[in-house]
This record gives sequence, structure tokens and C-alpha cells, in this order.
Amino acid sequence: MTAPVRAADWSCPAPLREHARIVLGHGGGGILSAELVEHLFLPAFAPPGPDPASPGTDAAVLADAAVLAVPGGRIAFTTDSYVVRPLFFPGGSIGELAVHGTVNDLACRAAMPLALSAGFILEEGLELDLLGRVAQAMGRAAATVGVPIATGDTKVVERGLADGLYINTSGIGVVPAGVDVRPDRAAPGDRVLLSGPIGEHGIAVLSVRENLEFGGDVHSDTAPLHGLVAAMLTATRTGVHTLRDPTRGGLATSLCEIAAAARVGVEFTESAVPVPPVVAAACGFLGLDPLHIANEGRLVAFVAEADADAVLAAMRAHPHGRDAVAIGTVTAEHPGVVVARTAFGGTRIVDRPLGESLPRIC
Amino acid sequence: MTAPVRAADWSCPAPLREHARIVLGHGGGGILSAELVEHLFLPAFAPPGPDPASPGTDAAVLADAAVLAVPGGRIAFTTDSYVVRPLFFPGGSIGELAVHGTVNDLACRAAMPLALSAGFILEEGLELDLLGRVAQAMGRAAATVGVPIATGDTKVVERGLADGLYINTSGIGVVPAGVDVRPDRAAPGDRVLLSGPIGEHGIAVLSVRENLEFGGDVHSDTAPLHGLVAAMLTATRTGVHTLRDPTRGGLATSLCEIAAAARVGVEFTESAVPVPPVVAAACGFLGLDPLHIANEGRLVAFVAEADADAVLAAMRAHPHGRDAVAIGTVTAEHPGVVVARTAFGGTRIVDRPLGESLPRIC
Repeated sequence: MTAPVRAADWSCPAPLREHARIVLGHGGGGILSAELVEHLFLPAFAPPGPDPASPGTDAAVLADAAVLAVPGGRIAFTTDSYVVRPLFFPGGSIGELAVHGTVNDLACRAAMPLALSAGFILEEGLELDLLGRVAQAMGRAAATVGVPIATGDTKVVERGLADGLYINTSGIGVVPAGVDVRPDRAAPGDRVLLSGPIGEHGIAVLSVRENLEFGGDVHSDTAPLHGLVAAMLTATRTGVHTLRDPTRGGLATSLCEIAAAARVGVEFTESAVPVPPVVAAACGFLGLDPLHIANEGRLVAFVAEADADAVLAAMRAHPHGRDAVAIGTVTAEHPGVVVARTAFGGTRIVDRPLGESLPRIC
Repeated sequence: MTAPVRAADWSCPAPLREHARIVLGHGGGGILSAELVEHLFLPAFAPPGPDPASPGTDAAVLADAAVLAVPGGRIAFTTDSYVVRPLFFPGGSIGELAVHGTVNDLACRAAMPLALSAGFILEEGLELDLLGRVAQAMGRAAATVGVPIATGDTKVVERGLADGLYINTSGIGVVPAGVDVRPDRAAPGDRVLLSGPIGEHGIAVLSVRENLEFGGDVHSDTAPLHGLVAAMLTATRTGVHTLRDPTRGGLATSLCEIAAAARVGVEFTESAVPVPPVVAAACGFLGLDPLHIANEGRLVAFVAEADADAVLAAMRAHPHGRDAVAIGTVTAEHPGVVVARTAFGGTRIVDRPLGESLPRIC
């Protein structure tokens, strides 16, 4: 426990300096746990105080739970654990993923984020400096979204029983009145819109994990999508039927799951799906299908035909949708089956991968 | 992957039988992930369908997030990860803990549970049979509380990078109008009430982990406390100032944290705190302080003096508070300091443990 704390973006505050690394006691709920919260997490997360307009609310009191004001109506609730390896990769880290992934799950129910939680499972021996940098990345990502990290928890397990750190982020968001976005609303005639090129997150993580060069820079596309969804809803409150962010399992899995949930067929043109050259090259080299590669800042939308042009225009006017494209349509034929029209004029059935070609991608 | 599935309370359904153990692909978001959700988690959790009274809600659609109806006002939001070792112990398992711990964090803000999330981090090689038994325990505990497990997530890490399984459970609950329960509301004159004997959860886990015999049976006190809190609030909506469930760090830590948050002193009579003989014997043998041992089904309440007798009576009338006792009072003197009156007529200052005498207790 005497290793010096390295200089970094984040510098370990004085009361924590006697520990350069996480010890089991940091998860014990006693003085060490309190120091970690007070001197590392709270400054990184900069939680807001009570809402002056809503007496009896708080997201900063170190209580068992945060109390938040909500309008009557509907809220969305989601959870995701993040176990990505490595913790830092080109374009981001587990900290950004832990915020964006959960915000995007809310956005895919058209919910605007209200609060996030952060549950850390830390491995004994983890450098406090590294934990600080991850917490700072989470705090910055949450501040950019404009959502508080309102409640948290820290556990520590013995050395060897985790891989540095795992994060769970749950989130709650407010669903606007009159909006109903869910997988089983996709309907025959819907147009299928994709917000941008696919595969960059998965290939960026793979490139550093396997120390591969693919003949070009590749960065994770990790980004929050609630703003893009809000822009789409200004074009139509009812015409956006289904949204999905194609993370693990890639675009193919999202399309298959929606086809199954809504009992419809999906047809799309393979050449209409933008695949960056570096992703195509990496997939060719490794024998992977770009449709199976994970994304973290993309969404696929199923939109009523009458509203599709307006929604596509709204997407293209937003920074996270400027490369949005229409890739296909929904049909009443072959329910549950996704068909790609290939560049050679034929068709092929697209299926989910069995497991994951690239484990621990988020 | 050819080991036979053992017969157990929970029996592995047919589509999963070809795998007796978790493989990395179960976390990949593809077909194997879907099978795990469909055949193991959903039957165990038995989530409710859409609320017919609230169109556009669901807790069963396999979407990115659940959508739930909420009344306008305040909700509580909390998160906890569970890393208890061993996974099964006398009186419960990680499954019950994962439900009760989060329900109790909500209850300590006086919130009645609305929905839980379940985020699993599984170790490659984990027996599906064991996972099924844990999920069944969670489902039973949630059903007893009457709260849906509305949303979930599963990740798998390579063998050796977890300890079987870890669970994160976040929760949201509705805070009744006119109720404001938080650590900094404890005030001079308040009576300190304890819902029952302490130390049983920690000693039960220790007994199996270290294979110790303490001359008596000891079972975890794990229990949900929302019903007890609701009973207390029927006695007074405003007089219950502060609630806490003394988990990691024990009763001493809860009292110290409340004294610090509210800038008050706390005085209590050591002999008034019920310590079961088996807990006292184990602590004496191991050199531990019962005040530092974790509980999972107990709460400490700070109640306005005028309401204290009525609240104590309401607690004793409830199954989870039938052994409730008044143990002390809040004073304006020595703010931030907790003082115990000892059996010998003296006093001693009670402090939090530095770390945790017993790691991974929840």
C-alpha cells in the first residue's frame, strides 16, 4: 500500500493518499468507504442539491436512497452492468459507456433521463488513480447529458475475483405524454431508419484488446442518444413506433428481436447500411459480420411511412444522426424473419449470432 | 459442458439443458442470452404484464427499459450490488438479500417499492442449476414484497474474474405525501428505536464461511422492512424523522452517520440493545463488537418524543418489529458523537469500524 500515486488528470485528494490502491475495507461501509465516497465519487459526480421547487427532494444527501420529484404519468426504468475490457479504449472508457448505455436504453423507450445510479464492484488492489479517472469520465458524461448520478454503492471483492472494476448503472426517465415506443409496435409499411455507420465501437475495443492494426484509426461511437430521440419526436409524437440501440449482437440482433416481438418481417438493403472502411477491413480480416458488431452511439428506428421523411430529416439535422439513412421496410410477409437484399441482387436471411464473437464489449 | 444437470428445487428447462454451465455466449446478447432470459429469469421472476389501468406501461416486454405508471410527487431511487460469500447461508441466499436490501433502502426513505431491476454478472462455468435457484429465491422474495422485477441485464465474464455471481438490484419507490424521512432530520429530544436483536445476519454468514460452531443455531435476519415502515407511518406521518437499516458496519455505523449528518449527539444504553446469546458468544470468541456486525432485516428509527410511544407500539404489533425497543435519545450536546452508557455505569464513545471486520457480508 506504499506505491506512490501517479500524476494524472485526476489527482488523488489528500485524505485518500495513504492508500494508492483499493483495500477490502473500502467496501466495508465504515470510515474508509465514507472517505471514498466523499473524496473520490462525490467530487467526480458533482451531484445537485435539493430541488428548491420540490421540498423534500434530494440527490446529494448520503442517504439510503435519493428522493426525486416526478410528474405524474409514466417513467422508464432500466439497468445495465458494464464489464468492458479494456477499461479504456479509443474514443472512451467504461465510464462513458456506463452513462451512455443506460441513457440510450431509456431513450429507446423515448424517455428523457431523470437520474442515474452507479454501483461499483471493485477488485482489491485497483489503483485509486484509475478509479478516479473512471469516475471523472462518468461525471463528465452525465454532466453533458444533464442527468444527475443520484445514488450509488461500492463493494470490494478480493484480488482475482473481478477484472479491475465492474459498474452497474440503472436509470429512470420520464416518458412524454402521447408517446408509445416499444419493440412490438413495429408494423407493416414502417420504414427502417439507421442513425449512422455501424461497428466502430466493437472494432475500437477489439483493436486495443488484441493489439491489432487495421490500416486506419477507429474510435468508439459511444454517445448519448436522448437528444436525437427528442429531435425525432418533434417531427411526430405517434409515428415513431420502435427504437433500439444495437449494442451486443449488433444491428442484426436488434432487427431480429424487433421482427420477433412485433411478428413482422423486415427487409433491408445491405448496401444501404453504412460500414466504415476500417470496420469492413477488420471484419474481412477476422471473418466477422459487421451486422453482428456492437455499437454504443447508434439507433435503429421503425417509423410509420407517412412520417419517415420528416423523422429522417430531423435525424440528419442532429449531430448524432447526421449520417442517418433509410435501410429498409417492414412487411407482413415472413413474420419474425429478417431478410437482406445483397449487392448481387439476391436475398439472404439474417440471424442473430449464437453467442458473441467478441465478449465483454460493454 | 457435458456435466449432467443436478436435480434440485429448480430444474433446468429443456431448451437450456444442453448447457449445464454458463458460457461466455450467455452474455453476448444473442440467442443464448435470449434463452437464458426466456427460460430461466422470466419464469423465476414471473413479471406482471401491462397495467390495464395505465395504457402504455409494461414490465414484461423485453425492451431496453420497462415503462411504469407513477403518481405525480416524489419517488425514491436506490442501488446496491450484492457480492455476499457464500451465496447460500442459514436463513437465506444472495437472492433474498438482493431483494430485501434494496427494498429496505427504499423503506429507509419511507418509500413503498414500485419496481426493482436485476443486473447479473456471471462467472463463466457457473452452474445453471445454481443460477436458477438464486433467481427463484429472488422471484419468491419479490413476490412476497409485492414488487415486480421489471427490468434486467446479464453479463458474463471469463472464469476466475468473478466469484460465481454478483447481483446489482436497483429500486424505485413512491414516497407518500407529507412524509420526509432523511438522516439529517434527527433532532434533539428524538427517541432512538431499534426494531429487534442485532448481529444475526453477519454471524450466520460467518458461521458457514469459516465453518464455525457457536454453540447454537444462528440464522440471517434477512427480511423486507417496507411493511414495518408503513405501520410506523400510520402512527405518525411527520414524527418519524430518520430511518436506517444497519447493514455493513452495523448499528454503530448507522448511529454515527446519522449523528454526523444531523449534527446531533446520540446517547444509548448498551444493555438495552438486544444481542442474541449466539451472537454475543460468537463476538466474544472472535473479538468482534456486536455493534459492528451487519444486519439485513433490522432498522433503527429516530422519532419525535411525542410520537415515540405510538410508533414503538406500532412496531411491536408488526411481525418484523415485535421485539422492538427504545435504546436511547438524541441530544444537542456533543454533536456528531455517539455515546454508549455501559453496564458498569460509565460511558464510552462509539465509533465506526475503519473498514469491515467481515468483508462481503451482503
